[in-house]
Amino acid sequence: MRKKKIGIIGATGYTGSELVRILLNHPEVDIAAITSESRKGDQFAEVHPFFRGLIDQQLVSIKDIESMDLDVVFLALPHGVSMDFVKDHADKPYPVIDLSGDFRLDSPETYEAWYNKGHIYQKGFEDAVYGIPELFKEEIKDKKLIANPGCYPTSAILGLAPLVEGGMIESQVIVDSKSGITGAGVKAKAATHFPNVNDNFKAYSVKNHRHTIEIEGTLNKLSSDELKVQFTPHLLPVDRGIVSTIYSKPKTGVNTSKISEVYKDFYKDEPFIRLTDQPPAIKEVRGTNYCDIYCTYDERTDNFITISAIDNLVKGAAGQAVQNMNLLFGWDETAGLRQVPMNP
Amino acid sequence: MRKKKIGIIGATGYTGSELVRILLNHPEVDIAAITSESRKGDQFAEVHPFFRGLIDQQLVSIKDIESMDLDVVFLALPHGVSMDFVKDHADKPYPVIDLSGDFRLDSPETYEAWYNKGHIYQKGFEDAVYGIPELFKEEIKDKKLIANPGCYPTSAILGLAPLVEGGMIESQVIVDSKSGITGAGVKAKAATHFPNVNDNFKAYSVKNHRHTIEIEGTLNKLSSDELKVQFTPHLLPVDRGIVSTIYSKPKTGVNTSKISEVYKDFYKDEPFIRLTDQPPAIKEVRGTNYCDIYCTYDERTDNFITISAIDNLVKGAAGQAVQNMNLLFGWDETAGLRQVPMNP
Amino acid sequence: MRKKKIGIIGATGYTGSELVRILLNHPEVDIAAITSESRKGDQFAEVHPFFRGLIDQQLVSIKDIESMDLDVVFLALPHGVSMDFVKDHADKPYPVIDLSGDFRLDSPETYEAWYNKGHIYQKGFEDAVYGIPELFKEEIKDKKLIANPGCYPTSAILGLAPLVEGGMIESQVIVDSKSGITGAGVKAKAATHFPNVNDNFKAYSVKNHRHTIEIEGTLNKLSSDELKVQFTPHLLPVDRGIVSTIYSKPKTGVNTSKISEVYKDFYKDEPFIRLTDQPPAIKEVRGTNYCDIYCTYDERTDNFITISAIDNLVKGAAGQAVQNMNLLFGWDETAGLRQVPMNP
Amino acid sequence: MRKKKIGIIGATGYTGSELVRILLNHPEVDIAAITSESRKGDQFAEVHPFFRGLIDQQLVSIKDIESMDLDVVFLALPHGVSMDFVKDHADKPYPVIDLSGDFRLDSPETYEAWYNKGHIYQKGFEDAVYGIPELFKEEIKDKKLIANPGCYPTSAILGLAPLVEGGMIESQVIVDSKSGITGAGVKAKAATHFPNVNDNFKAYSVKNHRHTIEIEGTLNKLSSDELKVQFTPHLLPVDRGIVSTIYSKPKTGVNTSKISEVYKDFYKDEPFIRLTDQPPAIKEVRGTNYCDIYCTYDERTDNFITISAIDNLVKGAAGQAVQNMNLLFGWDETAGLRQVPMNP
Repeated sequence: MRKKKIGIIGATGYTGSELVRILLNHPEVDIAAITSESRKGDQFAEVHPFFRGLIDQQLVSIKDIESMDLDVVFLALPHGVSMDFVKDHADKPYPVIDLSGDFRLDSPETYEAWYNKGHIYQKGFEDAVYGIPELFKEEIKDKKLIANPGCYPTSAILGLAPLVEGGMIESQVIVDSKSGITGAGVKAKAATHFPNVNDNFKAYSVKNHRHTIEIEGTLNKLSSDELKVQFTPHLLPVDRGIVSTIYSKPKTGVNTSKISEVYKDFYKDEPFIRLTDQPPAIKEVRGTNYCDIYCTYDERTDNFITISAIDNLVKGAAGQAVQNMNLLFGWDETAGLRQVPMNP
Repeated sequence: MRKKKIGIIGATGYTGSELVRILLNHPEVDIAAITSESRKGDQFAEVHPFFRGLIDQQLVSIKDIESMDLDVVFLALPHGVSMDFVKDHADKPYPVIDLSGDFRLDSPETYEAWYNKGHIYQKGFEDAVYGIPELFKEEIKDKKLIANPGCYPTSAILGLAPLVEGGMIESQVIVDSKSGITGAGVKAKAATHFPNVNDNFKAYSVKNHRHTIEIEGTLNKLSSDELKVQFTPHLLPVDRGIVSTIYSKPKTGVNTSKISEVYKDFYKDEPFIRLTDQPPAIKEVRGTNYCDIYCTYDERTDNFITISAIDNLVKGAAGQAVQNMNLLFGWDETAGLRQVPMNP
Repeated sequence: MRKKKIGIIGATGYTGSELVRILLNHPEVDIAAITSESRKGDQFAEVHPFFRGLIDQQLVSIKDIESMDLDVVFLALPHGVSMDFVKDHADKPYPVIDLSGDFRLDSPETYEAWYNKGHIYQKGFEDAVYGIPELFKEEIKDKKLIANPGCYPTSAILGLAPLVEGGMIESQVIVDSKSGITGAGVKAKAATHFPNVNDNFKAYSVKNHRHTIEIEGTLNKLSSDELKVQFTPHLLPVDRGIVSTIYSKPKTGVNTSKISEVYKDFYKDEPFIRLTDQPPAIKEVRGTNYCDIYCTYDERTDNFITISAIDNLVKGAAGQAVQNMNLLFGWDETAGLRQVPMNP
Repeated sequence: MRKKKIGIIGATGYTGSELVRILLNHPEVDIAAITSESRKGDQFAEVHPFFRGLIDQQLVSIKDIESMDLDVVFLALPHGVSMDFVKDHADKPYPVIDLSGDFRLDSPETYEAWYNKGHIYQKGFEDAVYGIPELFKEEIKDKKLIANPGCYPTSAILGLAPLVEGGMIESQVIVDSKSGITGAGVKAKAATHFPNVNDNFKAYSVKNHRHTIEIEGTLNKLSSDELKVQFTPHLLPVDRGIVSTIYSKPKTGVNTSKISEVYKDFYKDEPFIRLTDQPPAIKEVRGTNYCDIYCTYDERTDNFITISAIDNLVKGAAGQAVQNMNLLFGWDETAGLRQVPMNP
């Protein structure tokens, strides 16, 4: 059978290069186009030299993809830029998987409140599905616009979903997350300057990180209660990976001893969820699409503690996007995603 | 005036070498003895070669210190070993500053419950003061046994004390802490093997870390309520430093807008507390006795978020021990402790 | 066609887990047995938990493999242990790829001089081929014992081979190598304790590292001169990767301006050699079987400077072993080895 | 006695902040002025927040220092900018210690050849002394312009000086150096972006780094031969520190067995040189003004191997500048420089 023709819009960032890393070994697809407005005409392997010898692909402009008969398009563009593409290409036959935050929230109003910028394409919110396959598998299969989740939200939502959907917890949830530096993007800035990160650690965007509302909004779709999420991100001196340590309180009457059964049952058919009996570590998922989850109940304090670990560039971005593509085309959900963790 | 003669019991670990690092440049003291049963006869600088040229001190046995007319003794011994020394030397004239956990808790019963071992010296609990100078300065000044606080507890207790003593928060507190690897000690083990730590991150001892009860017990001395502490430690791929992110809920009626005033007032005379208007980072306190603290209130969720940063080997161990010594002898509390943070 | 049945002798170290990481996605093989005397009966994924969900393989004893009709065996055993296996299984039909140093040198005498231990199987030296495919491809194809090269030697020999075989350089060569910590093995020791490695750097085994003679001996097989190699290894605070910076002096009359042509010509058919026009970096080869090589001539000093980069666990161990297996069975040399570098 | 009044020109870089870190605890000086054209009016502790509570100093403009009656001025300015200050202030009574490269070389011509820019102040070359105290102590004492050495040159020159001055080695020398990232400066750029450095390693500026000529020129002042230096710098994933591994060949007839005596004798009165019997490590000198040096002779290859370690920001910059100041004023050479290494 003919392989599907893939377009990747945006070549210079980490999500772009991770998409290529994964798709090069995907059995069902060919990379037909990679675009970059700033680097068009250059080889992809000139932008990312570690791809030398692996890919022979010249970067093109977005306008060059019109004639290419693509089957699906991944948007590896910054927030605020994706919406232009989506609006301009809404009538094209191919589905779009958008890795930015532009269509993840409920409405343009919520977007504007948390992203501090206007939104130009209200209809996108109606068309889009929030692409966490473990929660919205059926909706994803026939959509033309998939809003691929944020990295922190993926770790938090997958960690909490069994408790929330089961109506097991009180409304206040604390998500204390720690992320590798690639989450801050490919561009050098003071916050990513090696001597500012190495052997260092700190919180940032306390109270107002925009992923807060993405987590809260998504969880509230699963819940009949109104959850409030206290989300605090921190910067780890590592390249990749997110660990989220999540605190919630059981409602009165909940059978807390069944907690591991609840998780097992909820994720029983999910190939990328691994439930662990020890707190999961970044390197156990590094380079893969796994989300490892640990949940326990503390009798002394009457709290649930859930800890999840993902690779922010894979399950938190490019890998989950490929998983969504696999669903779109009806392929095995794990096609192209059977990497073994890189450890050490 | 004659300098005070110092004894350091236990030379091979990080607290021992940090004590020497600090005390070598302390204006009021001479290091008279450093003991090591396993390395006695060797030079201290053979055990820690980076001290070559800085100190000429042969390691001796504990029994050699009897004849030395010491003015104060620091115990840099493991938990469970300190108690022997304290019991055997209870009638000596010199005060003892114990850096282990042997006398930090309320009672031998609590000790046995959390340390999983028996305690041989009940009287020590009556004699000891918990050596956080910012909270118990007057009690420290005339004690003969100072239980120097644990590293995590120092960061958590200093972060929460103003809220707890002011009776401002509900009884459930979450302390999510992240520590550098030196907290695991000087001895190589799988958990400290470089490829298991580098570019990695995970939680450990969820629900049952023994510092939980040290934090909870100390805070409850400051409080008329009965606090419950949910404490989760994590291992950072850094050498030194602890950041604790602490979540608490204001009681009804508390004036949350005054939060920064409460902290300023509480710590107004404390030379080692720096209140910050941004989340503090490890490298801003590295190598020093500072505890940097940030506190904010989130209106959306009605939570206080407090973040503290210390160097676990200094304010979390050797530096605080020296601060306690300064109080014991009536010296300037900052004597020997005016190091500038090592950044980068 | 039936897949070939693979045995891996030695499960607990890094070379064992890397072999599994690579072979799990190799299209032509099945892992039929993994042995461990110390952990037999356990699941492989209990020893290396990041393999959970990827492999269901119970560890067996070496003596259990007799009945298994294996097609090839990889030895991931320590130096000094491999020789026993090779001797005891010399009459078996399957070829053996030995990742230890036991059969890499010229003779038992040389082995004893540099490894400080006796050798029990002289005949192995006659049977073995030194498994650098880029140099000895034809010899590898019909051998029953392949001595898989050391990590440092792979980087040094591939860097120097074009100059040596061309008779272009004087007899004194300097190889200044820097390696990640996984080269020191999976077992925790003081030298691999995180605080001893992190933010640190130093040389070790100056003048007497046993890889010196492996480099020198192999190069001298390519040369009509008698080369002397000054080899200095250093420990980098990274998990994986070796960079070797190599200094040599052109013989009088050598056309130094043709240096890049010499390398291009020498490696023109080699899929895992990438010649670069900038000094190569570890992360550009991480997780892959590539060896990136840069060579330049300095007119001012009349020196060649060659810099090579490999992943010590892949091209320096498990990947090269798989490459050798591919040659043994006449498969595409890159089968199972098309990983994209993990960067970042 | 009145403390000397110090001016620091340039506040925002690492050398500026290291000067303040050291000088704050120097017994003989007061920091009278710190300048910054871009940040004037701000507090120094706003630019470097880790100094909060330690220094209360408002940044001023260079033109404000005229009225300040300074006793000595440190230039922590970029190359090419220092020369303007030196020229403009040549008639001032205070001596200038320039941490840039502007006056380290022999002549404007050499400067222009290696720095690719013109020089505006030829007379400075006549006035300046190259400020390595271990080699030029007497010349430093009565100079008004001290060219503080570069970081790589300090490590290379101190490592080689005993061999060079003794006329013990052949003319070709190889200096393979590895430096922490702070050597690249405080400004964020792609080369210092955390994911480009962490877990990575590579060489740069092969053949043409400008420190090559500084090393070569200085060594040739000590030598009657004409040395050629092959210098290759590499970037380590650490904050601070340089290790230089240096290869040289004994002249015929040199008594190679006396090598350690030669070093001991050469450095017998130097408080900041520590000769080691093991290859030195970065963390053994971190935060201090020490240069640790190891030298050995390899009989098998007839080479000397010398390895030196320094902290690039201290002995390689600010610390050596303070050492030079101590010589200028006739103080104890170690005043303000008795820090214990920060390890770990």
